[in-house]
Formats: sequence, structure tokens, C-alpha cells
Amino acid sequence: MNGAENLINNLAEAGVELCLANPGTSEMQLVAAIDKQPKIRAVLCLYEGVVSGAADGYGRMADKPALTLLHLGPGFANASSNLHNARRAYSPVLNMIGDHATYHLQYDAPLTADIEGFARPVSSWIGTSTSPENLAEIGMEAWGQSQVYPGRVTSFIAPADHAWTDLEAKSIPTPALEQAPKCHAEDLARAAEALRSGEPCAIMLGGRALRASELEFAGKIVAATGCRLISETFYARRERGTGRVPVERLPYFGEQAQAYIAEFKHLIFIGTKPPVSFFAYPNKPSWLSPDGANIIELADVSTDALDALSRLADAVNATTEKPVRQERQQHELEHGAINALELGKILTNRMPEDTIVSDEGATNGLWVYAMTEGAAAHDWMTLTGGSIGQGLPLALGASLARPNQKVIALQADGSAMYTVQALWSIAREQCDITVILLNNSSYAILNIELERVGVADPGPTAKSLLDLSNPVIKWAEIAKGMGIEACTVTTVADCDAAVERAMAQKGPYFIEVIV
Amino acid sequence: MNGAENLINNLAEAGVELCLANPGTSEMQLVAAIDKQPKIRAVLCLYEGVVSGAADGYGRMADKPALTLLHLGPGFANASSNLHNARRAYSPVLNMIGDHATYHLQYDAPLTADIEGFARPVSSWIGTSTSPENLAEIGMEAWGQSQVYPGRVTSFIAPADHAWTDLEAKSIPTPALEQAPKCHAEDLARAAEALRSGEPCAIMLGGRALRASELEFAGKIVAATGCRLISETFYARRERGTGRVPVERLPYFGEQAQAYIAEFKHLIFIGTKPPVSFFAYPNKPSWLSPDGANIIELADVSTDALDALSRLADAVNATTEKPVRQERQQHELEHGAINALELGKILTNRMPEDTIVSDEGATNGLWVYAMTEGAAAHDWMTLTGGSIGQGLPLALGASLARPNQKVIALQADGSAMYTVQALWSIAREQCDITVILLNNSSYAILNIELERVGVADPGPTAKSLLDLSNPVIKWAEIAKGMGIEACTVTTVADCDAAVERAMAQKGPYFIEVIV
Repeated sequence: MNGAENLINNLAEAGVELCLANPGTSEMQLVAAIDKQPKIRAVLCLYEGVVSGAADGYGRMADKPALTLLHLGPGFANASSNLHNARRAYSPVLNMIGDHATYHLQYDAPLTADIEGFARPVSSWIGTSTSPENLAEIGMEAWGQSQVYPGRVTSFIAPADHAWTDLEAKSIPTPALEQAPKCHAEDLARAAEALRSGEPCAIMLGGRALRASELEFAGKIVAATGCRLISETFYARRERGTGRVPVERLPYFGEQAQAYIAEFKHLIFIGTKPPVSFFAYPNKPSWLSPDGANIIELADVSTDALDALSRLADAVNATTEKPVRQERQQHELEHGAINALELGKILTNRMPEDTIVSDEGATNGLWVYAMTEGAAAHDWMTLTGGSIGQGLPLALGASLARPNQKVIALQADGSAMYTVQALWSIAREQCDITVILLNNSSYAILNIELERVGVADPGPTAKSLLDLSNPVIKWAEIAKGMGIEACTVTTVADCDAAVERAMAQKGPYFIEVIV
Repeated sequence: MNGAENLINNLAEAGVELCLANPGTSEMQLVAAIDKQPKIRAVLCLYEGVVSGAADGYGRMADKPALTLLHLGPGFANASSNLHNARRAYSPVLNMIGDHATYHLQYDAPLTADIEGFARPVSSWIGTSTSPENLAEIGMEAWGQSQVYPGRVTSFIAPADHAWTDLEAKSIPTPALEQAPKCHAEDLARAAEALRSGEPCAIMLGGRALRASELEFAGKIVAATGCRLISETFYARRERGTGRVPVERLPYFGEQAQAYIAEFKHLIFIGTKPPVSFFAYPNKPSWLSPDGANIIELADVSTDALDALSRLADAVNATTEKPVRQERQQHELEHGAINALELGKILTNRMPEDTIVSDEGATNGLWVYAMTEGAAAHDWMTLTGGSIGQGLPLALGASLARPNQKVIALQADGSAMYTVQALWSIAREQCDITVILLNNSSYAILNIELERVGVADPGPTAKSLLDLSNPVIKWAEIAKGMGIEACTVTTVADCDAAVERAMAQKGPYFIEVIV
């Protein structure tokens, strides 16, 4: 047995079931070790940003990490923007980065780079193997660290000689996972007092607080106190739809968000922090909570959300209340050219129960989101870190975690291009994913932002830098080139028929929606 | 005038002519400033790895930096693997990275990240603007630092409030560019002595030493002394072909490279350093120079190569010698299925003078390279840093630097996928680029490497992680989807006809070669 096999076997014993891989020469021993380990499924991605985005999607749905396999510093670099998103989603992700043999580093071969330097901005924990025996130890420590509640991005570096050196197999005890810290009793008392005050009060929810079991308690609190529930704008995963406790969503633009919560005297935060504007703008606020409001940060994202909500329900005598639940809706379609609103209606009508939506729909995604509250119960995942190119890989990873559930990738065109390679892995793995590509041939959000940052009269160069229509991207052609069946729709009727077909079948399908 | 305009105007005055851009909200003021500055051409790329690879290609051909425009830390992260390659190529690249307004950073909004941390592993110089006035100063300093001979990757951070704040226009003196250091007289004497010894001697060339003017002197030295000229395996740019001084190329695999130079008693290095193996392997050497050889590191990559070669020619009385020159070749084609060898012949026959080749052909590229020494005079660029996904962006940047020259992107399929978005910018800018995509549906090099690192009997999972044939990627479909005319060829005759057609026209063309 060599160091690579010892590592991979220990990780498999700890429960790692998926390796998302884009290996190179320095990782061949790790590839061979994975090959021999039947408990770990290996999925090839053709770009590292797909690897990391899929690891995020897997982590959000599985609540445990996928292993990534990345090729030295530059391979990690390609993964790191989606790791930034995963870090912001608090997803468990376990990065395994190959490196040159330790004795080879002194020669500064072309691929030599500061791997720890690359890893630092996106990793909560980094380790580098110090010996063939240590390789498995460091890998197991990284595994444990990745599961600090609610999840973290961890990275460990595997030198090639540690992987290929023979050693005695050694079973490493699975690190004990620490319990999440609980919220403080005095904060709980303040929150309960606010809820009982009769003054306008909202509970702002994020992170794990948006799961169905946590929302049950939130719903009871609403029933008992009449407070409102508002989610952070971009969250990792919300369980929503029919039968679930409804939650409002904080608007994206700062001034709208500010107005949305201006009325509240009390804001209680569970799984999130007080909202700030996504970007700064001249003469617009960064801090969005109302002046003088009673801000109660009951539980940050790393504090046990289920505990906080259940204790809060208890504190306001809501435990026996029946939460308000979302009712099933069916929408009448308005026929004509397809738009995001009608698409939202179509999805509400047709999404099967337990669908998982990866929403990187950008400007159009907001409308679809607003329309789908009354769909069958489903999971909704959003772009947490603002680095576009997350949506398609996220869908891939979610599907690998939940192969028996339908996944919909609601995807803006500009964002899709960043990690378009995900389509190939979706085809290869025959994932049950329907990609709905919203083609508006524009970085539409930036046309809005250009004005908001104070650019009064943008000239042709500025406009051209936000425009994707020269040439128009033929998305269905690209999808077919990657091996996915694809169609293009322009009308509500055609879109409805395409979604009907996609929902009825199992496997990859690509619908280009011209909006 | 605002800070952004002051910055952009100063950079334009210094000679910046191209901005490769993938902007977001925090860069809108910079976009608007570029819009108003007619001396700078703005080119939109749909992924930051395309931005940085194109900046590398531009730098290699223009010997001055393009400006990049990148969106905060994650945008820079996406650019950084091709910046690793640019750093290894010693290309001048000037990265402009937008950031949140300084006062907004405290709120840790979703896109907030450690930008300097992201930039450090790939930047030789980093600056962060400290005020609206300082923004132009820091940008100009970065511009100067990017041109330290032979070129460097520099990065500066532009906070949004420094860009949007009004100020008085201020013209900043263009930083004086320092002359490259010269090689030492005593090393020169040692090198001359080695060349005159009559013992086997090679001059190992890299960096700027592979330009035509530098090679003239190398050719004179060969004529006078009978030494051999050998290039580093992966270099930024070699001027080669008919009429140019021929140079051998060091083989890729370490043991082959070691054998190739085993006979030499003297090795003189100009523009490069003693060769090391690209990767380490069990029981294979890292250091490749023969034991006991006389190693003369006359000029490293940052030392003036033209000066070193001209003084060395003088020292061995070669100044009046006539260098050996490459003769024009025409190849007879062997008809049948197309392969890399026949493709090399076709290109030799048909490449027009002053063609620029971006070679990321991987396993197949070596054969094409070997066959094309006798083509019309041309430039050849290779993958310097080993991080694949360089070839298509590099071709884009080279074409933007030299719009009147034909560019050929000789591109392996696995590598092409990493930065496939480059095709769209090539279409949009109507660059005179012929992409020759070598589709072998495999990470072929890794199948070789798997054995070389000692994996004796790879199983199905290992093999599947190196295989791109499930599903087969339809490259011509993808190219058409991106807006480029494309064809697929399988025979020598069809490939020859396609290349003939591509060379006769001006503008983008895509030839998928099934090998």
C-alpha cells in the first residue's frame, strides 16, 4: 500500500462518497487509489471551477463534503472563485490538492507555485502533508474541519512522493465532530421580549435556519406573535413551496432592502447577520437596518439555528401553535412571448415534488423565484458569494448528492458561460438535470448598475462591454456540442411544452429560453 | 473629472492601447472612463481566464502590457492560472482589479475577499490605491513595474470610491524604464573559453534570446565554433522558420532531455536556467544537466540577452560570420487519415509569412512543431507555466497585438475546454485566427504519465478520468454556437483543403481535426 491508498481508504471509511476530479500528472497516484476504492464515486470535470461549484452543490444537499482533486496551485486557482461562493454558503468542501514531490520543489519547475497562498483566501483551514504517513492524517483532519457547523471549505496539499511511497496501512480514527455552539440565554430573552412587544418585529433568517425543520419553529413563532419572516437575499438553500413555512425575501438593491425593513422596531437575526448592500454606490447606504432599531443578533451562521428557533418558540409559548403553511398554487398562463414571469408560472405548475433548483438566473431569476412559492415542495439554492459561474456546477453537485430528485438549473446566459464545461459532466453522468438557460444576450444587471453607480451617459464602448449580442450565442448548439439534448423556445406555449417534456423524462435536458 | 478618468487618461498617455475586460458593478466607473478614452481599445471577454491569457499573448507580441479589468477578488482568481503562465513567460501584464468602496469593506459584503492574497502568488508587484488622487499614481507605477525586462505581471487594486470621486486632472510623468542588467565579463570569458575548447558545447536559449535579432548572433557563434543551439522546452516566443537561425528543442520528458544533453562538456545558458524535469517521477531525475559538465549561467531570463549574445559573438570572433539559416521546405503529403505529422506538413506548406502560432497542442503539438521548421518565417508561442487553457486566449491576445498577421491556434481538445469562452471574443473582434482543434477525445498526456509515475495496472475508474469520449465533444458545434464558422476533417485531403481555405481568407475559422 502507498500513501495515496492509505489516505483514500481512510477518507472512504470516514464517509466520503464522491470525488470531483480534474487531475494532472502529480495526482496520478491519487487517481489510482480512488480507482481501487469502491466506496468513492469519481466524477471527471473538464474545468476546476466545475469541480468546486459541484462540491458546493453536493455539500449543500448532502451536509457532508465531497472530495475534490485539483492539480497544483494553478488547478486550485481555477477552482477558487466557486470556492469563494462555497465559503459564503458555509458548505462543507474538502479540497485535495496535488503538488510536486517535496524534493522537486527546489527546482522551481514550471507548475511550481505557492499553493498555500492560492488556498488561503478561500479556505477556513489548510494543511500540508509532511510525510507519507502524515498524508492520511492531514486529510482526515481536513475532513473533520470541513464539517464545523454548518460547513467550511478546507484544503490539504498532497505531495506526489507522499502519495507514491509505500507504507503500512494505518486506520485513523474518524475525528469527532463538535456540536454547534448555542445562542446565549440573555439574547434569547431580548428576542422573546421583542416578539411580545406588539411592535413591528421581523426575524431575519439565513444559513441552516432556512431548512424545513428549522422553519417549522419559525412558523410557530409567527402564529403566536404575528412577526414576519424574511430571508437573507442570497442563501445556500431554502426549503420552500407547498406545505412549507413561507418566508419573504429581502430585495437585492440596497435602497429597496432598506425601505423593505424600515418599518421594523425589532430585527432578530438567526443564521445571518444584519444586511448590507451588495455593492457600495455614491450616496446610497451600505448599512440597511433602520436607525434606532433594536438589533438582536441571536444566532450567527455558525450558531445552532434549530436550537435557537426551538428555544425562541418555547420562550414565546409558541410550541403548540400551528404554523402558517404555503398552499399549492396553479397558475393560468398568459400566452405570447415567453418571459421570466410566465416561466415562473410554468415551473410552479410543473415542477415535481422534491425538485432542487439552482438559481443563477440573475435579473430574470428574481421573477421566477417570486412566482414559484406555491410550487410543490422543493429546495432553492442561490449564488451566495456573488462570483458568477456557480449555477451549472451547483446543479451538477446537487444531482450527484440526490440522484433521485429532479434538478433545475435556472441559469442566466452571461453567468452560464463562466463554467459552461459543467454541461459535459452533466451529460456524462446522465444527471437528472433540466437546464433552463435564460438568453437575453446581455449582462443585464450591469446595464442597471451602470446608472446606479452614477455613469450618466454611457457611450458605445461602455454599452458594448455589457452586451452579449455580437455575436449572439447559440446556446442550444453549445449544449448539443457537449452532448445534451437541447431545444430553443421563444413562446409561452413552446416553453410550457418543453418543461412538460423535461419534467416527464429522467436525464439531462437543455431548454434555451429567449427572453 | 473623476479618479477613474484620471487613471485611464494617464495610462493612455503612457502608451496603453488595449483593455481586456470582464467588469462588474464595482468597475462601472472604469468602464465609463475607458469609454471616453479613444486611445484604448476595449475588448470584452466572457471569462477572466480569457482576459489574462489574452493579456499574455498581447504582451508576448507587443512587448508592452495590455490593461486587464477584473471584478474584485473572485474575478482575479479566475484570471490567475493564466497569469501563472504569463508570469512564467515573463510577459508584461497590467492587472486592474476593482474593489468595493473603501468604506464598504467593513461590512463584509458577499464579494468581499482578500484581493491582495489572491494576487500575490502570480504578481511580481502589487499596489492598492490609497486615495482618489493616488489611483492614477499607483496605476502608473504598476505600468512601469510591468515592463521590468523582459516583462512582469503586476496588479493594482482600484476601490470604487477612488474611481468615482471627482478631482483635478493630473498628468503623471511616465515612469522611466530601467535598462536590463548586463551579464558579467568573467562569465563571458568562461563561455568564450568553453566555445573555443573544441569540446562538445551547447548554448541553451530561452526568453528573449529566442527572438530573431538575438538568434542572429547565436547563429554567428555556431558558424564560428560549431556549438549547438538548444531552446528550453517551453518558451514564450521563438522566431523561427525560413531564413531564421535554427534552434533545437529540448525534449519534454526528463529522461529524454537528460539523454539529449548528456554528451555536452559545456552548457552555456542565456535567457534560461539549467533544465529540470517538468514533474518528478519515482526513480527518475529532476536535475537534467550531465554530472561534471561545465555549467555557465551567462544570462538569466532577466539579463539582457541581446547584449550577452552580441558580446559572446564578439568574444569568439564571430561577428563577421554568416549564420546558418533555415531553408524553405515543402512537404509531400501522405494521404489517408489525418495525423499530427501530416498536419505539420500541411502547415509548413501553407502558413503565410509572419504567421503567429499559439501552440497548446500537447501530445500532438510536438509533432506539428517538429515538422514546421521549414515553414515561412513565423512566431511560435508555447505553454510556459503548464496550466492548461492558455492556447485560445493567447491566440486572441496575439491577434489583437498584430491584427494584420495570421494567427493559428494549435489546440488540444482537453486544454481548449478550460477557456473555451475565448472563441466568442475571437468571433466578436473578427480576429484573423484559425483554430486547429486536435480532437483525440482524451487527456492523452495523462495516459502516458499514469504509467510513468508508477501506476502499473490502472483500473476502469482511473482510465475514465483521463477519457473525454463519453460523450464525445462536438467541437465544431461548440464553435458555431460561439459564432465561428467551423468544419470537421478526418482525412489529409480534407484537412489540407480546410487549411488552404483558412489561410486564404481573413477572419476567424475553426477546423476540428479528428486524430
